Amino acid sequence: MRDKTFVLKGDLCYSKDPRTLETVENGYLVVLEGRSAGVFRDLPEEYRALPLEDWTGRLVIPGLTDLHVHAPQYAFRGLGMDLELLDWLEARVFPEEAKYRDLDYARKAYGIFAGDLKRGATTRACVFATAHTGATELLMDLLEDTGLVTMVGRVNMDRNCPDTIREPSAKASAEETVRWLEDTAGKYRRTKPILTPRFIPSCSDELMERLADIQRRYGLPLQSHLSENEGERAWVQELCPASRFYGDAYASFGLFGGDVRTIMAHCVLSSDEEISLIRDRGVYIAHCPQSNANLASGVAPVRRYLDADLNLGLGSDVAGGSSLSILRAMADAVQCSKLHWRLSDQSLAPLTVPEAFWLATAGGGSFFGPVGSFAPGYEVDAVVLDDSRLKTPLELTIQERLERGVYLLEDRDVIKKYGSGTALW
Amino acid sequence: MRDKTFVLKGDLCYSKDPRTLETVENGYLVVLEGRSAGVFRDLPEEYRALPLEDWTGRLVIPGLTDLHVHAPQYAFRGLGMDLELLDWLEARVFPEEAKYRDLDYARKAYGIFAGDLKRGATTRACVFATAHTGATELLMDLLEDTGLVTMVGRVNMDRNCPDTIREPSAKASAEETVRWLEDTAGKYRRTKPILTPRFIPSCSDELMERLADIQRRYGLPLQSHLSENEGERAWVQELCPASRFYGDAYASFGLFGGDVRTIMAHCVLSSDEEISLIRDRGVYIAHCPQSNANLASGVAPVRRYLDADLNLGLGSDVAGGSSLSILRAMADAVQCSKLHWRLSDQSLAPLTVPEAFWLATAGGGSFFGPVGSFAPGYEVDAVVLDDSRLKTPLELTIQERLERGVYLLEDRDVIKKYGSGTALW
Repeated sequence: MRDKTFVLKGDLCYSKDPRTLETVENGYLVVLEGRSAGVFRDLPEEYRALPLEDWTGRLVIPGLTDLHVHAPQYAFRGLGMDLELLDWLEARVFPEEAKYRDLDYARKAYGIFAGDLKRGATTRACVFATAHTGATELLMDLLEDTGLVTMVGRVNMDRNCPDTIREPSAKASAEETVRWLEDTAGKYRRTKPILTPRFIPSCSDELMERLADIQRRYGLPLQSHLSENEGERAWVQELCPASRFYGDAYASFGLFGGDVRTIMAHCVLSSDEEISLIRDRGVYIAHCPQSNANLASGVAPVRRYLDADLNLGLGSDVAGGSSLSILRAMADAVQCSKLHWRLSDQSLAPLTVPEAFWLATAGGGSFFGPVGSFAPGYEVDAVVLDDSRLKTPLELTIQERLERGVYLLEDRDVIKKYGSGTALW
Repeated sequence: MRDKTFVLKGDLCYSKDPRTLETVENGYLVVLEGRSAGVFRDLPEEYRALPLEDWTGRLVIPGLTDLHVHAPQYAFRGLGMDLELLDWLEARVFPEEAKYRDLDYARKAYGIFAGDLKRGATTRACVFATAHTGATELLMDLLEDTGLVTMVGRVNMDRNCPDTIREPSAKASAEETVRWLEDTAGKYRRTKPILTPRFIPSCSDELMERLADIQRRYGLPLQSHLSENEGERAWVQELCPASRFYGDAYASFGLFGGDVRTIMAHCVLSSDEEISLIRDRGVYIAHCPQSNANLASGVAPVRRYLDADLNLGLGSDVAGGSSLSILRAMADAVQCSKLHWRLSDQSLAPLTVPEAFWLATAGGGSFFGPVGSFAPGYEVDAVVLDDSRLKTPLELTIQERLERGVYLLEDRDVIKKYGSGTALW
């Protein structure tokens, strides 16, 4: 474990809490066996013999967490976003995802996705694959090789989609899921399976019951979609007439948080009752502002979720979102919250940059444990940013450099990356 | 003029009209003395002896026009956008602009601005400077050296701003404007003065009258701000109680289009009457979606302006906008129009990518004459984009590559740039 024990020097920025950014100029982050032993203005005597990674003058931030991203959609990022959700799934997503039956295609496409994810500022991600076991395992192999820590889901879908992508039955879908779990059990250090029913419209009642059974047996976390779009919400109500609201449909199958970690992406249209259940069950919301703009879904009331102390992070939602960058997702979250405030609800104050930064780091990171901060005890995922490209005659504080960076830095400005205390490249 | 006569080969994209994108794979754009002689799938015999600039496989698009940008605000781009317009002007803008009294500071700051503008995809820009004649002339020198074609405004402001930036009187403001015009008359080939009253709240009635007089004498185009923010609009009504609406205040001084080219930035809140006057007077609207989000101003109803065939283009509005990229402004225009459709007015269909592309090219470019297209007779500003960084297993059409590029390409992906038929670097 010696390689996980060192001192990282630089202009350190991390969240103290959802509203407060902590910055230490020329500070020292002491990493012992991959975890933070604290941040210091002056390096204590006892740590002076440790190897020093010297990034003086560079911004050093916690690695970013992408709570919601579709790997097979990366191939068509930035394309065809002129439809709303349900039409977009039919016209763009399902035809593309059907291609992942072909392992050669999957290898090419997932190789690009994994390479770009490795290069950028993200160190943790929750990833949707497709309903193809082979391609999903291939994606897990590729992600394991990046050094990133990820959860990957083989997608379940047995209704309301074209034959090319629909699983033949609930039973077959469940059995294939078990085969996938058995195949990959113990195979990876950093890549874990996550149960992934696509969303209620794609999953029959029988399938949901079978997945709940699998979840109990394997103790798996779960990811899915919730209350993204009006048409989707109305459809769920038709499909599950007994449910009181969309989230209640998941809950009725025992698949809505509680003992197991659960992420629901979007929550643009969640009702008071749904929000209340999200809080009670500790469900994570993956806020995906760019996707919600691109597919004209709207803007999730993030201020409300923050004020209610919900579990909350950011998602790129590629390819509803066109960019894989969680730096960009922070800026989008702030900008969209301002438009939501202006156009929809002036009781919900816009997000601040420190709040968006918290969402992208400690907020989403906590899904993976003590991740997303440099406070003592946290696993050290860290990203070194070179902002010297952004020239200005002004003298900026570290907080200002971070604020500007949220709007203007790009993945190419990441010059070094550590995951769980290890250099990733 | 031989250097302005050549053939440009590549994957050509340009707007045929506001709704239609024209693409020619491996096409030939023939440039004669800086102007397009047409786009051809096969190069006609008569042009085969001309020098060939071979960009086979690269996207070649018209240079982009930034109809609204504040050069002195570039220093604090990406910072301090947590206020609405009027508070932001007081807290962030005026203190920074006051520094341009110091020519050394201005040289440093404007050098950075001009360098970055030269590097990116913009070939034409309408630029606000400050109320300082010396610094404005310095900016014009620097912009002339970039090879870009720009209009630059020494800003007039004689009321409602701190002493550090306020001109001592209407008379002094007008006299200094004339001195600036005389100083720079005939000095530049590509850099022209544009009359720039900051906005109604900053300009006394007497100043506006004097500027109208100067405009008549010098035949100058004009740029200013219009109906950006609620507080601003209410203030204008107080300041000009006889005006029927904000634009009418400009019109009452004879400073609202008609015979002279005029740009008004924003028009987020324009009333029916105002829109009608904008159309009658041929005023250009500079649509600045990112700034309007950052300062929580809202979203301009661009669909309405397009349908009414108004003169219309895009502005970065740095530093209300954080990015100088007009590629980014296109994506922002589409995304904001979707949120506006969803949250405010479902009678206004979201913009399409071809429409946003037209805004950024031929729409805004027309302020400079026949600019922003490759159709015969247009001045050839052209930008070569390398999109090979965006890897995908899909075979994409040129239109798809452009669409994806609008969302994902950055200034660094510009690999060659021509202005008025001359290589700029």
